Amino acid sequence: MTGQLHLNAFLMGVGHHEAAWRHPATEPADLGSVAHFQRLAQIAERGTFDSVFLADSVQVAGDVEHTAAERFEPLTLLSAIAAATSRIGLIGTVSTGYSEPYNLARQFASLDHISGGRAGWNIVTTAGDRSAQNFGLDGARAHADRYRRATEFVDVATALWDSWEDEAPVRDRASGRYVDPERVHEISHDGEFFRVRGPLNSIRSRQGRPVLVQAGSSEDGKAFAAAHAEAVFTAQQTLGDARDFYRDLKARAVAAGRAPSSIAVLPGIVPVLGATAAEADRLAAELDDLIVPARAVAQLSEMIGVDLSGRPLDAPLPPLPSVERINGAKSRFELVRDLAARERLTLRQLLGRLGGGRGHQVVVGTPERIADHIEQWYAAGAADGFNVMPPLLPSGLEAFVDNVVPELRRRGLFRTEYAGTTLRDHLGFARPENRFAHAQEGEGRSVSA
Amino acid sequence: MTGQLHLNAFLMGVGHHEAAWRHPATEPADLGSVAHFQRLAQIAERGTFDSVFLADSVQVAGDVEHTAAERFEPLTLLSAIAAATSRIGLIGTVSTGYSEPYNLARQFASLDHISGGRAGWNIVTTAGDRSAQNFGLDGARAHADRYRRATEFVDVATALWDSWEDEAPVRDRASGRYVDPERVHEISHDGEFFRVRGPLNSIRSRQGRPVLVQAGSSEDGKAFAAAHAEAVFTAQQTLGDARDFYRDLKARAVAAGRAPSSIAVLPGIVPVLGATAAEADRLAAELDDLIVPARAVAQLSEMIGVDLSGRPLDAPLPPLPSVERINGAKSRFELVRDLAARERLTLRQLLGRLGGGRGHQVVVGTPERIADHIEQWYAAGAADGFNVMPPLLPSGLEAFVDNVVPELRRRGLFRTEYAGTTLRDHLGFARPENRFAHAQEGEGRSVSA
Repeated sequence: MTGQLHLNAFLMGVGHHEAAWRHPATEPADLGSVAHFQRLAQIAERGTFDSVFLADSVQVAGDVEHTAAERFEPLTLLSAIAAATSRIGLIGTVSTGYSEPYNLARQFASLDHISGGRAGWNIVTTAGDRSAQNFGLDGARAHADRYRRATEFVDVATALWDSWEDEAPVRDRASGRYVDPERVHEISHDGEFFRVRGPLNSIRSRQGRPVLVQAGSSEDGKAFAAAHAEAVFTAQQTLGDARDFYRDLKARAVAAGRAPSSIAVLPGIVPVLGATAAEADRLAAELDDLIVPARAVAQLSEMIGVDLSGRPLDAPLPPLPSVERINGAKSRFELVRDLAARERLTLRQLLGRLGGGRGHQVVVGTPERIADHIEQWYAAGAADGFNVMPPLLPSGLEAFVDNVVPELRRRGLFRTEYAGTTLRDHLGFARPENRFAHAQEGEGRSVSA
Repeated sequence: MTGQLHLNAFLMGVGHHEAAWRHPATEPADLGSVAHFQRLAQIAERGTFDSVFLADSVQVAGDVEHTAAERFEPLTLLSAIAAATSRIGLIGTVSTGYSEPYNLARQFASLDHISGGRAGWNIVTTAGDRSAQNFGLDGARAHADRYRRATEFVDVATALWDSWEDEAPVRDRASGRYVDPERVHEISHDGEFFRVRGPLNSIRSRQGRPVLVQAGSSEDGKAFAAAHAEAVFTAQQTLGDARDFYRDLKARAVAAGRAPSSIAVLPGIVPVLGATAAEADRLAAELDDLIVPARAVAQLSEMIGVDLSGRPLDAPLPPLPSVERINGAKSRFELVRDLAARERLTLRQLLGRLGGGRGHQVVVGTPERIADHIEQWYAAGAADGFNVMPPLLPSGLEAFVDNVVPELRRRGLFRTEYAGTTLRDHLGFARPENRFAHAQEGEGRSVSA
């Protein structure tokens, strides 16, 4: 198990703490600076992280007034980052709810070509009525419909990524024959949500297809992850819950005919670092003092799909509806509900607990303390690695790379250099087989037919 | 008029001649190399070109077997080029037929942020049944429907680009107020093709919005260009036709309430360069000898929307249907029909005339000869500049920058250095006003309302 830990750097503006932009250690101008993001990726690459990751949404934040507004579109930003790095994986979020499989498949194939095989796709289904209203709908589709659409979307996209066999380009200058058309396949998909003829207008990319990443932890989400995901981001507040989630997901993968090692489970961790415990505590307190309660309530309301505005801050959290009535992120709703009940938190206390990591585990302390936490969860079978969410950027990522990564390496838990060049290499995954590579006559009709 | 000429470098694989990849001056591996495209943009930037431009399609080529297959998706590639350049404009093609205005507006805003204000959008409507079949349709929409959709698409996208006033971000660390929500506007669009609430989740970009570029030369296309386009690419075979097109388009712009100088008309030119006329002729002959007739017939058929496969190569072109029956690129159809009739060409002769430039003007000769042609068309009021389409890449672009550009500068026709930093600066355009900037109460409902 040693040396196999995986680390992803979740890049979010000037930090994951919701008040990061107000803290003197950050530079607000960085929010709109591509150089800032290129630098973050270079820091993570110096720390031999597996990947960097960009989240996304397709609407403005619930509380526009108090939200740092600059945000790049992930695929364009990742291409610019690709040009400034050479090894680190590049994971971008695109919704299956409001894009076309053909366009998405092309853009990720292009990013995979541009980066020499470092692309990953974080698959989200997008809850939220405001998002839906930017795309011609009155409100969000139902939870189960979103996942049915996502499943079909991934089927179409993976078929398109396979539509060119590796040997299709022959590039014979003498004859003028560039392509063997027998090795280029229509996909002829005709389903509930999509009808796509194919083939893709892109040769097969370096990794065959991007690494598929997912973060749904609801029943639908776990079923989807077990069938399709190769890396899973998850929010877990306790070691027990994390281990249960880990075991459940691996068992589901096995039931779906996959090896447990074919999915990397990566809980989020918000490392609030200090040279001493007191210094780390001081930073955590500084940050929480900068939270604007109205904004935090709006974000929590959006996250769990329940409007909490106007509720008294210093009373216990009011009773929440049953999870069946939630059409947002069901698992995040349950996490918040259970956290508030377990610790009998008031709304204000709950906001403090969530401000640093939006439900992800916040660990405050020295580099050794953070490394202990990582080692404990890893050794206990609760994680294959971590989704690292520094509260402040770039300082929190630099502190992690300069102090926690060396400690993890000393303990034999983490690589000292990259062994390969692609994201699949870093994660220990083989290049996927192409479904059409051994097609018999009549299967996967070629364009020459 | 001196010093105002505009030059765009149309980047197409290893060259615009359809057999470029077979010529010994090119390297087929460049087709899939991002470094190749970054280098091309750097060469054009050394030549103080206004911009580089990437075409696009959303289907495989009609003759897959004989077509160089590697192709990047434009926006991801332009972001990677942005990271390797600092001044040159970056124009990418995206279809209004098969994408969502909200997604497109975000991606171009992101490219404009990433590049410091160098983005341009080439608006295409996409003919072709095979394209439609990749997006759930049985066949392409009718010509007029495509343009009606494009018009509404541009209306929605420009409203989204205006949805954040420049002064919306206030970034007040002390109070925690990042945004003045009175300056962030819903667009509440409800039209024939799209329903979009807004606002965009991106602050206003450096140029306000990308430069809008278009290439339709049909009646619908010219009406669209006169209303919306800021630069127009066009294929013109004779000075007389080019001058007529130029005057017509400028008159239409004036009728639409715009200044003639608000649209740059850029005919295509394929410069086949040699140190002597004989050397240039030799290169032209070498290239035409490499054309695969079956592939050229397939490409011509696709271009004009008439199936010419199986027609005898050495007989005059058979009669073509009337333009009203064409649902493809109507103006390109007319250009080909008129060229064949005017010069009484056989099909084989026509293919030779089209092989270098797909209907664009091919000029074979010394740097002085190319400069003469450019100066003549420019002085005659047939062009504000040119869309330069080198037959071989990078060698044809290098030859143009090293030999033709200095000649144009000596004649006082072209800049010797960039005066500004944005694509709008290069083209001499002001930053567009924001439609919401002086909104009265009740207009352009703000998100705080």
